[in-house]
Amino acid sequence: MARIPVGVLGATGAVGQHYVTLLDDHPYFKVVLVAASPASAGKSYAEAVAGKWSMDRDIPDSIRGLIVKDASSVADIAKECRLVFSAIEGQKDWIKELEIQYAAAGLGVVSNNSAHRWTDWVPMIIPEINHQHLDIIQEQRKTKGWKKGFIVVKPNCSLQSYLTPVHALLQAGYPIKRIIVTTEQASSGAGYPGVPSLDLIDNVVPFIGGEEEKTELEPHKILGLIRDGMVVSDETIAISANCTRVPVTHGHLAAVNIEFAGKVPELDEIKRVWRAYSSYPQKHRLPFAPEPAIIYREEENRPQPRKDRDAGKGMAVVVGRLRKCPVFHVKFIGLSHNIIRGAAGGAILTAEMLVKMGYAR
Amino acid sequence: MARIPVGVLGATGAVGQHYVTLLDDHPYFKVVLVAASPASAGKSYAEAVAGKWSMDRDIPDSIRGLIVKDASSVADIAKECRLVFSAIEGQKDWIKELEIQYAAAGLGVVSNNSAHRWTDWVPMIIPEINHQHLDIIQEQRKTKGWKKGFIVVKPNCSLQSYLTPVHALLQAGYPIKRIIVTTEQASSGAGYPGVPSLDLIDNVVPFIGGEEEKTELEPHKILGLIRDGMVVSDETIAISANCTRVPVTHGHLAAVNIEFAGKVPELDEIKRVWRAYSSYPQKHRLPFAPEPAIIYREEENRPQPRKDRDAGKGMAVVVGRLRKCPVFHVKFIGLSHNIIRGAAGGAILTAEMLVKMGYAR
Amino acid sequence: MARIPVGVLGATGAVGQHYVTLLDDHPYFKVVLVAASPASAGKSYAEAVAGKWSMDRDIPDSIRGLIVKDASSVADIAKECRLVFSAIEGQKDWIKELEIQYAAAGLGVVSNNSAHRWTDWVPMIIPEINHQHLDIIQEQRKTKGWKKGFIVVKPNCSLQSYLTPVHALLQAGYPIKRIIVTTEQASSGAGYPGVPSLDLIDNVVPFIGGEEEKTELEPHKILGLIRDGMVVSDETIAISANCTRVPVTHGHLAAVNIEFAGKVPELDEIKRVWRAYSSYPQKHRLPFAPEPAIIYREEENRPQPRKDRDAGKGMAVVVGRLRKCPVFHVKFIGLSHNIIRGAAGGAILTAEMLVKMGYAR
Amino acid sequence: MARIPVGVLGATGAVGQHYVTLLDDHPYFKVVLVAASPASAGKSYAEAVAGKWSMDRDIPDSIRGLIVKDASSVADIAKECRLVFSAIEGQKDWIKELEIQYAAAGLGVVSNNSAHRWTDWVPMIIPEINHQHLDIIQEQRKTKGWKKGFIVVKPNCSLQSYLTPVHALLQAGYPIKRIIVTTEQASSGAGYPGVPSLDLIDNVVPFIGGEEEKTELEPHKILGLIRDGMVVSDETIAISANCTRVPVTHGHLAAVNIEFAGKVPELDEIKRVWRAYSSYPQKHRLPFAPEPAIIYREEENRPQPRKDRDAGKGMAVVVGRLRKCPVFHVKFIGLSHNIIRGAAGGAILTAEMLVKMGYAR
Repeated sequence: MARIPVGVLGATGAVGQHYVTLLDDHPYFKVVLVAASPASAGKSYAEAVAGKWSMDRDIPDSIRGLIVKDASSVADIAKECRLVFSAIEGQKDWIKELEIQYAAAGLGVVSNNSAHRWTDWVPMIIPEINHQHLDIIQEQRKTKGWKKGFIVVKPNCSLQSYLTPVHALLQAGYPIKRIIVTTEQASSGAGYPGVPSLDLIDNVVPFIGGEEEKTELEPHKILGLIRDGMVVSDETIAISANCTRVPVTHGHLAAVNIEFAGKVPELDEIKRVWRAYSSYPQKHRLPFAPEPAIIYREEENRPQPRKDRDAGKGMAVVVGRLRKCPVFHVKFIGLSHNIIRGAAGGAILTAEMLVKMGYAR
Repeated sequence: MARIPVGVLGATGAVGQHYVTLLDDHPYFKVVLVAASPASAGKSYAEAVAGKWSMDRDIPDSIRGLIVKDASSVADIAKECRLVFSAIEGQKDWIKELEIQYAAAGLGVVSNNSAHRWTDWVPMIIPEINHQHLDIIQEQRKTKGWKKGFIVVKPNCSLQSYLTPVHALLQAGYPIKRIIVTTEQASSGAGYPGVPSLDLIDNVVPFIGGEEEKTELEPHKILGLIRDGMVVSDETIAISANCTRVPVTHGHLAAVNIEFAGKVPELDEIKRVWRAYSSYPQKHRLPFAPEPAIIYREEENRPQPRKDRDAGKGMAVVVGRLRKCPVFHVKFIGLSHNIIRGAAGGAILTAEMLVKMGYAR
Repeated sequence: MARIPVGVLGATGAVGQHYVTLLDDHPYFKVVLVAASPASAGKSYAEAVAGKWSMDRDIPDSIRGLIVKDASSVADIAKECRLVFSAIEGQKDWIKELEIQYAAAGLGVVSNNSAHRWTDWVPMIIPEINHQHLDIIQEQRKTKGWKKGFIVVKPNCSLQSYLTPVHALLQAGYPIKRIIVTTEQASSGAGYPGVPSLDLIDNVVPFIGGEEEKTELEPHKILGLIRDGMVVSDETIAISANCTRVPVTHGHLAAVNIEFAGKVPELDEIKRVWRAYSSYPQKHRLPFAPEPAIIYREEENRPQPRKDRDAGKGMAVVVGRLRKCPVFHVKFIGLSHNIIRGAAGGAILTAEMLVKMGYAR
Repeated sequence: MARIPVGVLGATGAVGQHYVTLLDDHPYFKVVLVAASPASAGKSYAEAVAGKWSMDRDIPDSIRGLIVKDASSVADIAKECRLVFSAIEGQKDWIKELEIQYAAAGLGVVSNNSAHRWTDWVPMIIPEINHQHLDIIQEQRKTKGWKKGFIVVKPNCSLQSYLTPVHALLQAGYPIKRIIVTTEQASSGAGYPGVPSLDLIDNVVPFIGGEEEKTELEPHKILGLIRDGMVVSDETIAISANCTRVPVTHGHLAAVNIEFAGKVPELDEIKRVWRAYSSYPQKHRLPFAPEPAIIYREEENRPQPRKDRDAGKGMAVVVGRLRKCPVFHVKFIGLSHNIIRGAAGGAILTAEMLVKMGYAR
């Protein structure tokens, strides 16, 4: 199969850098274009990221020399690629409009930006949980008159350390009533330069703007139903989140307390459910699909960010410390790599599904 | 008033070092004796702590030259001081017996050790919350035949970032049904050498042995009632704790979700209650009493360990981010200095109360 | 003595925050005015620093409500105060001109900015080393026609961990030929937001723009002679510096290798010289003068940033590990608080000297 | 080629854990035996390391179930393997004797322990620098009457970030007179548990016992000559080292100042020499040989531990910031992974050379 030519919008930022790194030698996609703000446009990628390349690996050789385009030059970009990964930052309405322009120009848009997350005709995807939401692309195309374009978004990184294990339980027939979760989130979640070192040396910051709301609300859409080509949120599960920032480079940890709505599974049954969990990405052996999707560790002090974030090449969700909760029913610790699983990697896996399902080609 | 001669048991460890530092120039107490394990006995204090002095201040001059005694030489120690602060570590039954020997020898024992925390005739004290529990000392003396001795313990450090604010609400007439709390605890809570640096650089450890149980259960005793000279636990409030270790030197942070049992106060009313909170230590203007006892900060990103742990000379509990909880009723962040408020400082304030109430002299 | 009304320029930045904190209740100076960029002008100080107050203490009550002035409103500011501490940032020529305007308007200027460091009629002061350079203020006034104004600057923070101990040796009659120094500098040296946390978690950055040059060259001026009312650099000592950034909040550490030019003192003699070192600030018992100015620690693993930066209220230079050097003659470790001794505190001590010497009143 | 059965002594410690991890699927060697102290003997490897496994990867499956042997059971171990990697700790004379017993029993010994580093008939090897020293194995065998056994040691990790670049210059015809080096060493250099987190949060420790001496002296032996089957140290280059510990997991950084003895190469020539450097391991394409051996980075702020330690799978030496030195001739920053290049990986590469040269089979 010839690789699909793709572009990365916002390619010079922290998530953009992960995109070009993770997509190096990807079997489905070939990065042929990088775009960013007008300030970077016209420079080679290597020049544009000089002094702010924050990856632990070097810039892929195939990307170094690409000339950065202005991300608002939609028509030009549409000539060169068929799908764009958008990690662009900016004013919300402008982003919304820009992503629509890309789709109208015939491009698939897989976006990290939060602008369209609550647009009811845009699916918000965690690949293992709700791949069937992608089918509303048909409705997008019909309503908008788009032939090949579409818009798909990924949710916030903070919820990805606990929502897949929760989904596994729901799917196994254990409805959940309430969740209280406290996250300990990594520095890279704020991008680069992001959080000043003076705020994180010998310190924790117990606040991340907008993060608790996203952690509490986005699961409702992800777990929602499709009705008339739109996603209808399912607010069955009440969620309360406390989001804090800790001195860790990558890897968001979540301490999760769960109250079931009906039958309460035994701890061993929960572990069994998690270990058996396999979904569309695993069944179709997609390149970025972690296998297994959920890793349960029996050690009493795991998962830990530095030791577990790279499990499944950064795409697995690692859980541990499952135990009874004296207030709700059970509690556990979840962990996922916020930039790989929680941002660029999750979006790439979503795009792989789009290819497999025939929406992107 | 002549200062009361006191001893510090376990004086060479991390908490012991805080004791001798905090007691330097104390208006009520004068450290005349330091004791530790046989390995240190016979050395000067300065020699005994060489290479393991972990304070950011130097050894007080009045302590440097003291010859370390063997902590098991009860009779000798009883000749020199009238009260001991015990930060000794060891096998639980041995500690229990040793502390009883000290009390029988006529000494007041204020202990950081967990050995006697669940002995029903021993009060477990947070000075602002349950000073009235100290009255069971009378029963101790009657039952045991002790003339002047007594045993009093302080609870675990992990619960002190949330229990005082909780008590303030209870006292103001807002009974609480359930609490879910996640703590982010400092390295110094594990003593010295304690947690290896390899475990805390770019990492979080989501487990601390025994800590969650203490955080969940000890409040029941602290909030308990006195009946027949013994403490009867009050298990009205169900508590679930997730305890994690973060790369911070000092200061335990707690993310707290609260469900009230009856009337739910407005957020402003809660802040008012906290700000008005004043208890025995404040009313008697004890030397180590923070004033105010609870500090509420309005900034959206406080309290933070490095910036707030030293409030009230390390004795205040700092709270912030009070907001509505979509699952329970309210949630907030609490913080206290685990070694000062949570260990040595809290014990010293307890001893000050004992003096003021006439039990120690 | 009535306190001298002073202003702080650049008051909202990291060094400016230290100024207003350190000057709280100062016996000589009273902060009556805070100034910053036009963006902050017109706001109360508390509003202007909201979200970027990075001190571990709160804003002094006397400063919270001050209305921030525009730092370029020289005439207005000159009406309210007699001396300004300048921590303003900006284009070099503009700073130079602005500081001259302040002096011309009759104000003393004590500046942290590097703009005038190499102006030959401006003294660059480390209080213990070259207070006599302040006498060229007379020449400044004569040449410029200033009646009461003057400009004095402080040097870079990076050299303050080793230059005072070096000066002590020079003064004791041990000329030095060559110095090789490697610094491990704290995050706060780069201000706030400064160094991104992603650059300093589990990492060291072996480069700080312009820092090595300053560390190598500024000592030449500080150790220089006054000739015809100007400072003539003394380049006798060749210095080579490697400056690195480490994950530490405050406290610059320096590993120093020294080759003497003539007689080589014994190690004990060097310690004696350091311990006996006392200079103008100590002799006049100035409020910010550390006593002693140099602290030698005998422990094999000191000085350490967290444990020694606050020695002498952050104004002492702490040295240790003096030993023979197999290549040069001796080597040692030095440490000083980069923001207190190395910036705001050092400037305040300089201003105290200016008062004592009659230049500021 | 059938893989050579090897054992790892001290297999449960930090370096031992790296050995079993790095040797997983090695083309020359197969770990068939793990040995440690009597306390671990008899347990499965997984049991023996429970709670102290400190790698970011899991235990290799082929190792988990191996029963740990007592490292002093030389005869038993000699039956199962032909070469041992020794990371055992203990009293120096006991280690010396034990390693001799292994060699006498017919085993090759490649040791991380410092016990035999100054034994003149034992070569101390950095594979790129002095592979020809391995030839004294012939003399070892002749003198001791060993048929197949030998003892080879690797040097301290602290010198490996600068000695290979120095050797490249020597070999290119630029003799060196003096070196002053300051190291910023990672936590893992002290093993596990190693340095307490309380010593490295917001702190640097400017002392590592014995490290400066090793850094200054071991290069003399490594750069020495073979005479009469023994290594004669070459003390031509005087070296002075300042060794400090910084809050970094892995990766020792060195700031190096160099004075040449004769001709002084241009900076570009030095970079050329480093980039062209290739030695025995590269020429024979050994499995663990990094290619290139020395990586020069042009960015002004590299190398950095977190970003560069894994270059060449942790086996490369990364250098940067080459510039003129105002005191000596040139200065630069070097970096290497202290556990891979500096310990287990370097020893494995040495063993690969031993196979290639015919000493191990």
